[in-house]
Amino acid sequence: MTTTRPTPLSRDRFPVFRPVQTRWADNDVYGHVNNVVHYALFDTVVNGWLIDKGLLDIRSGDTIGLVVETGCSYFAEIAFPDLIEAGLAVERVGKSSVTYSVGLFRNGGEQAAAQGRFVHVYVDRATRRPKPLSDAWRRILEEIAP
Amino acid sequence: MTTTRPTPLSRDRFPVFRPVQTRWADNDVYGHVNNVVHYALFDTVVNGWLIDKGLLDIRSGDTIGLVVETGCSYFAEIAFPDLIEAGLAVERVGKSSVTYSVGLFRNGGEQAAAQGRFVHVYVDRATRRPKPLSDAWRRILEEIAP
Amino acid sequence: MTTTRPTPLSRDRFPVFRPVQTRWADNDVYGHVNNVVHYALFDTVVNGWLIDKGLLDIRSGDTIGLVVETGCSYFAEIAFPDLIEAGLAVERVGKSSVTYSVGLFRNGGEQAAAQGRFVHVYVDRATRRPKPLSDAWRRILEEIAP
Amino acid sequence: MTTTRPTPLSRDRFPVFRPVQTRWADNDVYGHVNNVVHYALFDTVVNGWLIDKGLLDIRSGDTIGLVVETGCSYFAEIAFPDLIEAGLAVERVGKSSVTYSVGLFRNGGEQAAAQGRFVHVYVDRATRRPKPLSDAWRRILEEIAP
Repeated sequence: MTTTRPTPLSRDRFPVFRPVQTRWADNDVYGHVNNVVHYALFDTVVNGWLIDKGLLDIRSGDTIGLVVETGCSYFAEIAFPDLIEAGLAVERVGKSSVTYSVGLFRNGGEQAAAQGRFVHVYVDRATRRPKPLSDAWRRILEEIAP
Repeated sequence: MTTTRPTPLSRDRFPVFRPVQTRWADNDVYGHVNNVVHYALFDTVVNGWLIDKGLLDIRSGDTIGLVVETGCSYFAEIAFPDLIEAGLAVERVGKSSVTYSVGLFRNGGEQAAAQGRFVHVYVDRATRRPKPLSDAWRRILEEIAP
Repeated sequence: MTTTRPTPLSRDRFPVFRPVQTRWADNDVYGHVNNVVHYALFDTVVNGWLIDKGLLDIRSGDTIGLVVETGCSYFAEIAFPDLIEAGLAVERVGKSSVTYSVGLFRNGGEQAAAQGRFVHVYVDRATRRPKPLSDAWRRILEEIAP
Repeated sequence: MTTTRPTPLSRDRFPVFRPVQTRWADNDVYGHVNNVVHYALFDTVVNGWLIDKGLLDIRSGDTIGLVVETGCSYFAEIAFPDLIEAGLAVERVGKSSVTYSVGLFRNGGEQAAAQGRFVHVYVDRATRRPKPLSDAWRRILEEIAP
């Protein structure tokens, strides 16, 4: 599209993988997963990982993650019922924000069919003001920094 | 609600089970999977099973399944990131229609958290006219009749 | 499908109408709005009407509506970018539950392209226990009883 | 987040506006429209405008638009039942691709609550190979270039 059009990342760029399912209704009129669905998968992968690591408690934790920036590059079609693995990496850790990189790999492929950026700011649930990331968070986030 | 309010089905009513994933965005403002999402799971389970059995080819098959009737009873909350198994059964086979029953079981529970009806009419892709079910279809559908 | 297969309701069965929009991604691989989307519209119409009437306050009201039963009959295709009007009626008022009827009318048509049942139980936000409907609620619900 | 964190665009940057509806289920557990939904609105606005202009015929046109890149910056919450207007502009016209800019304005606000990029490549429906944009397309696209 432009001179900065990205190229697909390969699997070795992602320290951790999580399986994600496509749904029948994800396929749009052109027979592939609609561009919107990729973001539902990104959201699920990032939050699912945070929950598994004990960092996020959706219902009652003091800290919640608000999304301030997202983006996706689409390289190849995904279609239900493809088997998708999502690769997850932490790209950058700021004072209270984290930029994640997510790659969607289709049916065992080596190159990402799509890849995205997902930027969370961690805020206090009640005040919605940014909270500096604790050392515990930083240690765990570093585990999946490339 | 009424005298006909159904009761949750147990696992033994379903001959086959398929794992289905919830997504972060499925949780609504009340903290549980929105009532709409259950239908996205039903759709995925029925069509996924048909594809696995070689009966349905979404892109190029002559026969497609159109949905004419659906319904769901909600007994207990489901919330991302719960692990959900969907039980599937064929309730009734008509001339060109099939009524499926789907139960959603949460985190290994014995009683369905929600259960639904899903009625497909099988039609010709081009004319969208109903097609009588072949013997091959009937044999496979019978495998999951209770 | 069965001897009880319903027939499309006409506009005069619905005391109130609300415009609802379809979205590009609502169209599935068969070129029409996926069966799941109808429920997203039902949900929107019922809750939108309750909010407009001052009965429901999603964020901070004491009472919330939990969905215990839904169903839909599909008679004719809807496809983005069709203009859809949703007719809304109250079918039955129980002690703490209300059964709504919703019809989706396409591009000015006289017969519903799809129609559904939507059963809410009104509960206390904190305890999630059913609350008897107040007289104020009953008076407003009666306005759209047929 | 970074030094390039964008700032909200104002209404005068968008030559055309289209109303878009939020849905009940769009609100997530934090009480606002989930970050994924913004992309469903972008998709709807771009394709809806192309259809209204006679450029796109989803079902039978020779040309279809495939999405190769999207992105969104979130500045302020949107929540059902907010009234949203989407501003649309053409940012860049390539040989067979178009970069659109979409801003979501909430309840009459002057600054975008969220804004995004949406890059379509126009391809032949059958071969899925890029097609150079015709003069007719270019003339109409220029109408909403800033």
